[in-house]
Amino acid sequence: MAELPQRVRIREVGPRDGFQNEPETIDTFDKVRLIDQLGRSGLGRIEVTSFVRPDVIPQLADAAAVLEAIDVPPDVSLSVLVPNERGLDRALEHRDRFHEVSVFLSASETHNRRNVNRSVAESLDGLRRVLARAREAGLRCEGVISTAFGCPFEGFVAPERVAEIARELRDAGCDEVGFGDTTGMANPKQVGALFPYWRDMLGAEIELTAHFHNTRGQGLANVLAALYAGVDSFESSFGELGGCPESGPAHPATGNIATEDVVSMLEEMGIATGVDLPALIVATGMARDVLGRALGSHVATAGPVEWRTRGAG
Amino acid sequence: MAELPQRVRIREVGPRDGFQNEPETIDTFDKVRLIDQLGRSGLGRIEVTSFVRPDVIPQLADAAAVLEAIDVPPDVSLSVLVPNERGLDRALEHRDRFHEVSVFLSASETHNRRNVNRSVAESLDGLRRVLARAREAGLRCEGVISTAFGCPFEGFVAPERVAEIARELRDAGCDEVGFGDTTGMANPKQVGALFPYWRDMLGAEIELTAHFHNTRGQGLANVLAALYAGVDSFESSFGELGGCPESGPAHPATGNIATEDVVSMLEEMGIATGVDLPALIVATGMARDVLGRALGSHVATAGPVEWRTRGAG
Repeated sequence: MAELPQRVRIREVGPRDGFQNEPETIDTFDKVRLIDQLGRSGLGRIEVTSFVRPDVIPQLADAAAVLEAIDVPPDVSLSVLVPNERGLDRALEHRDRFHEVSVFLSASETHNRRNVNRSVAESLDGLRRVLARAREAGLRCEGVISTAFGCPFEGFVAPERVAEIARELRDAGCDEVGFGDTTGMANPKQVGALFPYWRDMLGAEIELTAHFHNTRGQGLANVLAALYAGVDSFESSFGELGGCPESGPAHPATGNIATEDVVSMLEEMGIATGVDLPALIVATGMARDVLGRALGSHVATAGPVEWRTRGAG
Repeated sequence: MAELPQRVRIREVGPRDGFQNEPETIDTFDKVRLIDQLGRSGLGRIEVTSFVRPDVIPQLADAAAVLEAIDVPPDVSLSVLVPNERGLDRALEHRDRFHEVSVFLSASETHNRRNVNRSVAESLDGLRRVLARAREAGLRCEGVISTAFGCPFEGFVAPERVAEIARELRDAGCDEVGFGDTTGMANPKQVGALFPYWRDMLGAEIELTAHFHNTRGQGLANVLAALYAGVDSFESSFGELGGCPESGPAHPATGNIATEDVVSMLEEMGIATGVDLPALIVATGMARDVLGRALGSHVATAGPVEWRTRGAG
């Protein structure tokens, strides 16, 4: 077995990726207190919101208000998602309130067209302008590639094509590229093969981040495979919040991997996350109350292993 | 990375471990048609029921009726759980209806006493008599060690103690020893270290089986770690049915690992299970209807990866 990393970076994406997929509008005040609690849990990175068109995603219409109101420790790196230059313009009005931007596109033409009504080449053209201006503004940049492990419309996605898009993002100014398993099609064998390949294709400098979904229950197995493949940067969502278009309302457990489940597994393995698990579970409990339904997270229900063994004997 | 096995054996334990933990009595007829559907899904091993005292576990009071009524292909190896000689006596009245017995005890004294009101040594004494008689009757024997990766009362469980108990079971006639992560405390690093150690302690002949729970969302990550540690025998439960005393009614997803999730991950990795995933998902759908609630299984909700990619392009 390869060496495991001693520590990993986790970006909490629940406030954007999770909230965005909730059918009921979440009150701005609730978003703010949830993000504040996340910020107090030791998470090093939080994706706070997205500057998308409010008529397209009304749930995030309060992006500016959220960004202005949150109060998190100064060492937490905050990011916002921007789909295009107009979104970047809106974000830059609050430049002193965040540190990073994330941009996104899909590796598959069909998924990209369904998602943003553009070809992949057109998306890359637009993102080059966004990234250039974001860098001018002193922002760190992440590019996220959706359907990097498979596409629900096209099926197989060529790893070479994903690498090509990743190189374009790198050359356009991304410090970090995220590889998204958008609909939970990745398996550990594939993950273990692809990350070393992408690392070879992209060089040692750039940060490679894994973004897995738990759609088929295999999310943490993919995290393990990624760890053994040298990945030490992950995105996840507290409460397992987040989107999976294939999930039905009767089944809450098919979104992103749950941050608390990731943290629990890694800390039990002796890999440092910096996260205070009980504080994170408080955030998930608050989210459950706000949303009024059971969440998919396991550790928030069962409790950390430590709670079972502390003082035992 | 170590070599992955080309094929694995899976024992479906839902009809025993799963049903046993359901609060509402399941009709015998429903149990039979669920087991028949499982038998048609290509599973090589099914744990059908348990001959426990009907006043202790009323849910399984129909053990004999179920065993007599099921109709599964002749190549499916059927097992029953027996707690003691009395249970074995009852099972042997239906000797021609099954092939294997499973016996169980806990590695931790506290858990064993709470579960069966005996010390581990007393349990081993009783099981030696059960196993001797089962072997006389020509039955294959499995011994399952609960809390093999940690105990909710005692915390740490010494791997040496688990190995000692496993050796006792082997010497008493077990062809197979199962290692149970009874309350979901195992992590992949531990799993990856313990199975090679137990293999060393027990020799090459005996079958070592991993029985994981998904209590903290890490069940399939533990399966992956076990695969890399040379394990090729697993127990799981369709629909993620099964017991975890720490799970609340609001959260269905904290029992055994779901057989369909295991099968999906392994088949996607190119590891043969022999299971027809769509047929297994039919069984889970039937169980959901019988139980009248959403189940924790992911793949039964999202569908196999293949359904997303078949004919795509």
